[in-house]
Amino acid sequence: MEIPFKTLLEIKKDSPLPIYVQIANGISQNIQAGILKTGTKLLGTRSMADLLGFHRKTVIAAYDELFSQGWIETLPQKGTFIAQNLPNVKPISFSENNQKSVDDIPFIIIPQNTIIKIPPVNSGFRLTFNDGLPDVRLAPREELARLYAHYVKFGESAVLQYTNPYGQMRFREVFSAFLNETRGMNIQPENILTTRGSQMAFYLIGTALFQKNDNVIVGELNYPAFNMTFETLGLKLNRIPIDEDGIVVDAIEEICERKSIKAIYITSHHYHPTTVTLKPERRIKLLALAEKYSFYIIEDDYDYDYHYANRPVLPLASADRHGLVIYLGSFTKRIAPTFRVGYIVAKQEIIEELAKYRRIMDRQGDTILELVLADMLSDGTLKRYTAKSLKTYRERRDFTCELLKNELNEIINLRIPDGGMAIWAKFDRQISLSELSKKVASKGLYLSDGSAYEDLNACRMGFASMNLKEIEEAVGVLKSAIHL
Amino acid sequence: MEIPFKTLLEIKKDSPLPIYVQIANGISQNIQAGILKTGTKLLGTRSMADLLGFHRKTVIAAYDELFSQGWIETLPQKGTFIAQNLPNVKPISFSENNQKSVDDIPFIIIPQNTIIKIPPVNSGFRLTFNDGLPDVRLAPREELARLYAHYVKFGESAVLQYTNPYGQMRFREVFSAFLNETRGMNIQPENILTTRGSQMAFYLIGTALFQKNDNVIVGELNYPAFNMTFETLGLKLNRIPIDEDGIVVDAIEEICERKSIKAIYITSHHYHPTTVTLKPERRIKLLALAEKYSFYIIEDDYDYDYHYANRPVLPLASADRHGLVIYLGSFTKRIAPTFRVGYIVAKQEIIEELAKYRRIMDRQGDTILELVLADMLSDGTLKRYTAKSLKTYRERRDFTCELLKNELNEIINLRIPDGGMAIWAKFDRQISLSELSKKVASKGLYLSDGSAYEDLNACRMGFASMNLKEIEEAVGVLKSAIHL
Repeated sequence: MEIPFKTLLEIKKDSPLPIYVQIANGISQNIQAGILKTGTKLLGTRSMADLLGFHRKTVIAAYDELFSQGWIETLPQKGTFIAQNLPNVKPISFSENNQKSVDDIPFIIIPQNTIIKIPPVNSGFRLTFNDGLPDVRLAPREELARLYAHYVKFGESAVLQYTNPYGQMRFREVFSAFLNETRGMNIQPENILTTRGSQMAFYLIGTALFQKNDNVIVGELNYPAFNMTFETLGLKLNRIPIDEDGIVVDAIEEICERKSIKAIYITSHHYHPTTVTLKPERRIKLLALAEKYSFYIIEDDYDYDYHYANRPVLPLASADRHGLVIYLGSFTKRIAPTFRVGYIVAKQEIIEELAKYRRIMDRQGDTILELVLADMLSDGTLKRYTAKSLKTYRERRDFTCELLKNELNEIINLRIPDGGMAIWAKFDRQISLSELSKKVASKGLYLSDGSAYEDLNACRMGFASMNLKEIEEAVGVLKSAIHL
Repeated sequence: MEIPFKTLLEIKKDSPLPIYVQIANGISQNIQAGILKTGTKLLGTRSMADLLGFHRKTVIAAYDELFSQGWIETLPQKGTFIAQNLPNVKPISFSENNQKSVDDIPFIIIPQNTIIKIPPVNSGFRLTFNDGLPDVRLAPREELARLYAHYVKFGESAVLQYTNPYGQMRFREVFSAFLNETRGMNIQPENILTTRGSQMAFYLIGTALFQKNDNVIVGELNYPAFNMTFETLGLKLNRIPIDEDGIVVDAIEEICERKSIKAIYITSHHYHPTTVTLKPERRIKLLALAEKYSFYIIEDDYDYDYHYANRPVLPLASADRHGLVIYLGSFTKRIAPTFRVGYIVAKQEIIEELAKYRRIMDRQGDTILELVLADMLSDGTLKRYTAKSLKTYRERRDFTCELLKNELNEIINLRIPDGGMAIWAKFDRQISLSELSKKVASKGLYLSDGSAYEDLNACRMGFASMNLKEIEEAVGVLKSAIHL
């Protein structure tokens, strides 16, 4: 019987798949469908080429593909046949009672974590006053793509294999040198553990270094993701006041006298949410207290590089003489959230302990991305990119603050932030932030509903991810929503 | 004063950095070093080009770069000057007592986890009988590189932004269809959560669904990484016997009668470490027991796609009618460990709960990699790649088993595995596996020292990541080390 290959194989010239792949796919599909049976002889490549109207080389390539996938075999002197042992045989279904439905009989009670909130992704908005995110349109995408593709394609085998949980040594070397140079630190590669963003850093620190019910100090306003993580891990948060200079360090001692405090969490350079920089004298006091009462300072330096006014202040980690500061940060704020390389810097015994938990949580870092970042750190690409975005973000900060002061001064109370990517905005009590948020959403503008800081009618207004034209538009939307 | 730019700027024609970048870097370095001072007038682009011997366009590009980084400014009618407000000012060091050393005063006792072992990375070996890893040289690196670069460069903004913790919807759609087609399952995208490999799946399940001290059943031999994870989380492992057909299901009921069992962990398709496939009748029994005693079946299907002999058996998840099976797997075994996309399939209420913990542990998945995999799943690239490697690995399995039987039959007791990438090898008691491991290591061959299965003098011998020539060499090294 003549097999009607021309009809069986549907070849599309405009498909992204090469013709030979389409021929191979078509034949293997017909084998799987039972139309071409085991032992059936195939046409020779020349006859098949004539029949299908393609070059013989194309058919040879298709047969090679089918052979290497195990669909066909060649018997010497006899020709090419559908293989006796096919690669993709029908699996054994062992269940008689085959009603395959995931039903919802409440058989086992699933525990409910009520602390963790998964907010909706607000990617649908054209304009956004987000929590303080970079403008991903400025990211060095060309360089990232080129380097990433290079390692995937040409990287030595080890790049594709399992590796250690600490992070790539090359990255740790380059990055420790970078921190020593830019942050006044004095660390070795062994003091660094890479993480998946700051978020994994919180989780690792909270899990590896503390016990349930340990007491930790945070500001009464604080980065919500940190609170959520530590509360889920069963740690007790002790809230202290903050003022216009950040956390009130004097309030710490009183707590330490009453109970054993294991750590304080602090966003020292640009306090989250209020954006202020912790003053040198408070830093010195905080370090002295940590020494006196033996607690860790978890220093989250999430956007150190974006400081606009005056001179930046070196992190507490630069003045730590007893390994009490656990320093962390991330490239997500520096480049784009999708590139999830963060880091923890601490004394080596702590890093060793954190690495164990990373081993069972995530096994290892993003090898390729870490190598890409090491390249971009050492050839200056990241430095140039940061300098450029610093200038751009400063313009955006100035423009946003000026516009808000000019247009909405009676409604929004703000202080120009010295750094970072967001403004801390307190709204007049006449305005309901949650209603305003809904109103502007319908006009394509994201604005936080303020629920993270409930009683304050306040929120962070990120200015960095919009250009000047967009900022103008966004303030316009805000203004008309308020004055409606 | 004439500034000696020619001497100040070191331009290398063979550098990978473009000339204009080198000029810009050189000038900014001289500004930072204090050699070029704020307010200094720079040569015009034409004179600078003449002086340096480059095209004027190159100098213009360098000045543009310096301007966009904020190092220089242009005053109308006057020329170009080193900027008044430099972008990279020296940070404020606040500590008088600036002995920056991370010393090791045992100030705070760091808790020590003694369960988690971080093994050395064995990437230095030319030959390796590993735990059962794919040959990364076969990975579709070209396609991965091309697609990855495409998304980094041209992906819409949302690809670079924060996203949800569940995984990319496109991946979940394509992959749920793939599982339904190949595994006889009947799931929706909402039943899938992506993870960082199987490892994060273990951690998430252990954290979100159980309480400390909950009882879980495992085989007396079991995948060590699972045990390590669940023990660290405080769960109680109850070990049941295994035989030549995998876990002895009959031993479960006896335990369930004595105490409340919350889950069993099972590598059903190729038992880890012994490689056997759990028979249909045991699967039916296991499902019935899970229903009777209300426990979860954590089904780790880590290399389902690599089954050589007979027909593969559909996973237990395909016959689960009550949402008791939590199914997991990973692409690390299918492509290469560096590409860390794994998955959990379970009923939606469970996925929702697991996602909360992923939110605080890792925030989100690898957006770009998930999109790349979705593309490769839907255009057939992964299917072709799997069919090819299946054929290759079968050859390698056959060749390795034959060689070992011919050359070392009296030393190594093995059963040809029906699938997977490793052989379960029991060594004669005369041979010390830990000594043998050291001996062959000095000849460039990795062989496990058997410490994971202490009393048995046995280990897994992965055959998939070496080609036939390497396998022959590896067996040769083994043979001469044994017969020395």
